Amino acid sequence: MPAGEVPDVFDGVSGQVPEELAQHLRTVALVDHHVHGSFTERIDRATFEFSINEGSNDPVPPWMTQFDSPLGFAIRRWCAPLLGLPPHADAETYWKRRDEFGPDELATTMLPAAGVSRWIVDTGFKGDRITSHRRLAELAGGQSFEIVRLERLAEDLIDGGTAPQDFPEAMRSALASAVADPAVVGTKTIVAYRTGFDIDWNRPSDAEVVTHARALAANPGPVRIDDPVLIAFGVHEAAAHGLPIQVHVGFGDRDLDLHRCDPLLLLPLLRTMPPVPVLLLHCYPFHRQSGYLAQAFDHVNFDVGLAINYLGARSTGLVAEALDTAPFAKQLYSSDAFGPPELHVLGSVLWRRAMGLVLGEWVRSGDWAQADAIRIVDMIAAANAERVYGL
Amino acid sequence: MPAGEVPDVFDGVSGQVPEELAQHLRTVALVDHHVHGSFTERIDRATFEFSINEGSNDPVPPWMTQFDSPLGFAIRRWCAPLLGLPPHADAETYWKRRDEFGPDELATTMLPAAGVSRWIVDTGFKGDRITSHRRLAELAGGQSFEIVRLERLAEDLIDGGTAPQDFPEAMRSALASAVADPAVVGTKTIVAYRTGFDIDWNRPSDAEVVTHARALAANPGPVRIDDPVLIAFGVHEAAAHGLPIQVHVGFGDRDLDLHRCDPLLLLPLLRTMPPVPVLLLHCYPFHRQSGYLAQAFDHVNFDVGLAINYLGARSTGLVAEALDTAPFAKQLYSSDAFGPPELHVLGSVLWRRAMGLVLGEWVRSGDWAQADAIRIVDMIAAANAERVYGL
Amino acid sequence: MPAGEVPDVFDGVSGQVPEELAQHLRTVALVDHHVHGSFTERIDRATFEFSINEGSNDPVPPWMTQFDSPLGFAIRRWCAPLLGLPPHADAETYWKRRDEFGPDELATTMLPAAGVSRWIVDTGFKGDRITSHRRLAELAGGQSFEIVRLERLAEDLIDGGTAPQDFPEAMRSALASAVADPAVVGTKTIVAYRTGFDIDWNRPSDAEVVTHARALAANPGPVRIDDPVLIAFGVHEAAAHGLPIQVHVGFGDRDLDLHRCDPLLLLPLLRTMPPVPVLLLHCYPFHRQSGYLAQAFDHVNFDVGLAINYLGARSTGLVAEALDTAPFAKQLYSSDAFGPPELHVLGSVLWRRAMGLVLGEWVRSGDWAQADAIRIVDMIAAANAERVYGL
Repeated sequence: MPAGEVPDVFDGVSGQVPEELAQHLRTVALVDHHVHGSFTERIDRATFEFSINEGSNDPVPPWMTQFDSPLGFAIRRWCAPLLGLPPHADAETYWKRRDEFGPDELATTMLPAAGVSRWIVDTGFKGDRITSHRRLAELAGGQSFEIVRLERLAEDLIDGGTAPQDFPEAMRSALASAVADPAVVGTKTIVAYRTGFDIDWNRPSDAEVVTHARALAANPGPVRIDDPVLIAFGVHEAAAHGLPIQVHVGFGDRDLDLHRCDPLLLLPLLRTMPPVPVLLLHCYPFHRQSGYLAQAFDHVNFDVGLAINYLGARSTGLVAEALDTAPFAKQLYSSDAFGPPELHVLGSVLWRRAMGLVLGEWVRSGDWAQADAIRIVDMIAAANAERVYGL
Repeated sequence: MPAGEVPDVFDGVSGQVPEELAQHLRTVALVDHHVHGSFTERIDRATFEFSINEGSNDPVPPWMTQFDSPLGFAIRRWCAPLLGLPPHADAETYWKRRDEFGPDELATTMLPAAGVSRWIVDTGFKGDRITSHRRLAELAGGQSFEIVRLERLAEDLIDGGTAPQDFPEAMRSALASAVADPAVVGTKTIVAYRTGFDIDWNRPSDAEVVTHARALAANPGPVRIDDPVLIAFGVHEAAAHGLPIQVHVGFGDRDLDLHRCDPLLLLPLLRTMPPVPVLLLHCYPFHRQSGYLAQAFDHVNFDVGLAINYLGARSTGLVAEALDTAPFAKQLYSSDAFGPPELHVLGSVLWRRAMGLVLGEWVRSGDWAQADAIRIVDMIAAANAERVYGL
Repeated sequence: MPAGEVPDVFDGVSGQVPEELAQHLRTVALVDHHVHGSFTERIDRATFEFSINEGSNDPVPPWMTQFDSPLGFAIRRWCAPLLGLPPHADAETYWKRRDEFGPDELATTMLPAAGVSRWIVDTGFKGDRITSHRRLAELAGGQSFEIVRLERLAEDLIDGGTAPQDFPEAMRSALASAVADPAVVGTKTIVAYRTGFDIDWNRPSDAEVVTHARALAANPGPVRIDDPVLIAFGVHEAAAHGLPIQVHVGFGDRDLDLHRCDPLLLLPLLRTMPPVPVLLLHCYPFHRQSGYLAQAFDHVNFDVGLAINYLGARSTGLVAEALDTAPFAKQLYSSDAFGPPELHVLGSVLWRRAMGLVLGEWVRSGDWAQADAIRIVDMIAAANAERVYGL
């Protein structure tokens, strides 16, 4: 198999997926509504293994390899053929072959195989070795859009010398600029990493915001917004400007208190905020709770991105659970890939395969009509994102 | 297919369910131990779509239809044939055909197809357009029983002019009347909607109750019991009268704080109350926690009603999880249908099908004996409810 | 079938498990890294039924039998053949036959069928009728090791007359002795049963410990350590001595507040303790949370023992979920059997079968290579335990 050839996502299970549905899933163009850039520089194996472990902040210990994980196995299964290797090539062989590629060559080999036509890129995490959203689209094909991270926007203002008393107006002005920028289609909050969700979600007054901004500015060292008042301010201002708001939920690295990132703790916000689209990201292991919220609130949507990659072969079960209760207009596709372009393509491959297996079973049993299954694929693959972000 | 003809619940999966088990599940008469009336009046499509969305309090927004949900798909799959349409008739066709039926005709077309011989009806939610429990049984066939909602009983007493100092005795007297009424087989608390489960569950003294009743009566406007003391009083009094107590758990509309309706928060009550049967209702997404409680406490039982309907084709996975740990004497069947008679029949169809698929797999693999599977079906279908409610 | 003959763990599903993987799973020798002794005396049926109900503290009520549970069905399916009965022999027949065996005969009939080569035995629960760890290995075959329960160690010191001011040093001395004992390979905390996980996990000073030991010693009656300071002290001291620490998580009897045994509540401890191996035990229904922690912290490992037995045929779903996100080096096998030797063998049979079904499906679909599946079986069956405990 030559490098860059996309493996059939239904290899080994084709008998389980009705052919029309399978063919549709093989080819449907995705909106990856939450993704980051790919690496711009060559990385060593330790960095690669670290980059395929979401939770830890430490190097992978010597007595194990991160290849021996659900994600590592999925990379060997699905990405080895993209490099011209047989499926399941062992970790050594995979790494040796991968290391023959430069970063751009890797990107152009992997990224187009994702079949993504529009990338909505979170540029808020300062990855020095990560492509810009425009560069990602150049390498991958398709169009790119940008998500503004609220906490970083605020930190940049304060770092840039905005006086505390000017901060509320400066934030509004920055958000107005974002609204005016055709590349920007939404915002994101990482309140999960800063305070958890169990904070006072009332909209603060400008006077309160100034007081808290002053306290923040008085701290020595680089600005880091972990003040609930300033976080709530950012979210309410984004909503007031009519911008969709992505929220990191659940699964993430160990800096966060996972139990305080249960999306149900967002109820006080969801009940009272202006109904701009809210996008609950990742959600595992609280994806059923997110589906419930998407059912209960017109403006709430969710995905199980990131987790799909990290569950590897188990992602079929996750995709099934994500279909528990939410109306089909409320779920979106994302990879949440960051760094290795394996993650950008794998999210797509695993999602397509899982949808085929889950919906395929229902079509075969007569629970669903095949035409409906194809229609729902289109909604989750792209149409819901088009509506939510006004693409 | 003429209207009213019941589709085979194992259509499309008959090869997966051993025949004797399948035949038993097709015909076993159910006790629907938690259900409401069906609509007495013609409804428009907006009302229908609103009625098949548990979580939201808003009309379905214009950019979607609630038919595009797991429940909507299940209605098109299983109820369309009851109206003489092919399975999966599209939403427009379904609605047009359904709209040709008057409410009684709809009810008599749908309800008997549920195969329910006894309906235990929660009459506490004031549905002006909902049948009484007796009328439901007339339309559906079978016998009806009544569940008294504790908070409404208390509110009716206070609304009816009971003085605060007389309230404890009036509540006891009303409960004694309920015990004496052969139609009444249990009570229900909706503490989930009023305070959540994380309250002080100690049994209050009459003096405390009077004080809190006085505070409540002093509020202007219609009485609404959301005082933990008054709620705990009602539950303890119902238990003291020997009445089974249904508890709304988990999945419900967005007025409740779902994370505060985790049944584990009931532990302080369960450990100390008189051991009358407690029935944890719905439970999703905390059904595993409910199964655990049913294993740990002799008097605790549970169901996954409501959620079965809302999960549609995914209900098979839910029914499987509900069989995780609880002794089989501790699980009951319910639909929790309210309004559209589709919900009364669908609960039954999906439960029968799911039980056939889950238990059928175990019979085929030799994990279970078929005779055992049939025996367990009988327990969950009816025998457990007969024991719990003394039918 | 003569008594003692081991049923094929893939009976009824052999077509679903590739033969090489199946053969490996049939024969691989396990390390049961968390287990207790088996009964030394004849028990009556009531005691047996009580012993196969984890959650309750009451006798099984007269209107049910604990045989009618997922675990009871699994015993009839898998242990009846070990007694020379057909699979699914009814409860009466099973009991009558079982009762013909003396306790040693039962043990030597059942225990070797587990295929366990090393038993790591928690001797902290005072079971008067339970074998010692050495006796268990004599009856079962294989080698035995010991786990020291921290709370009992502390209680024995205080009960034995250690003065409060000497307690910190006495605990250190006892732990040093444990380290020096080649049979002792780790410790265990049952903080779940004593306080829940939401305590202050900071390492206390000796002065604080003495103060709290003094308060404890002042209580009349037998010493029971339920003081968070003393519990945290024990855990930090065990870590300081380099000993692996088992932690009871989730599923257990109703004395514990299950929602306060969510392993995420251990984050403050896990983030700050010396990185000795932590073993999260059982974990159901929080096993996904445990897998997440095992992914996020190099020193965290977990199992789904106990729950595998209690879920019976549903254990396949549990084993699948346990494979969601954690690196494969972080999961271990255990039965957590206590009392009836059925539990020692059943844990093994159900785990082997579940692993075959879950991994077998992935091998058949091409998601995993068969050689990888066999390698991962070896890691979870034994190699991870060898590394963690230094066997």
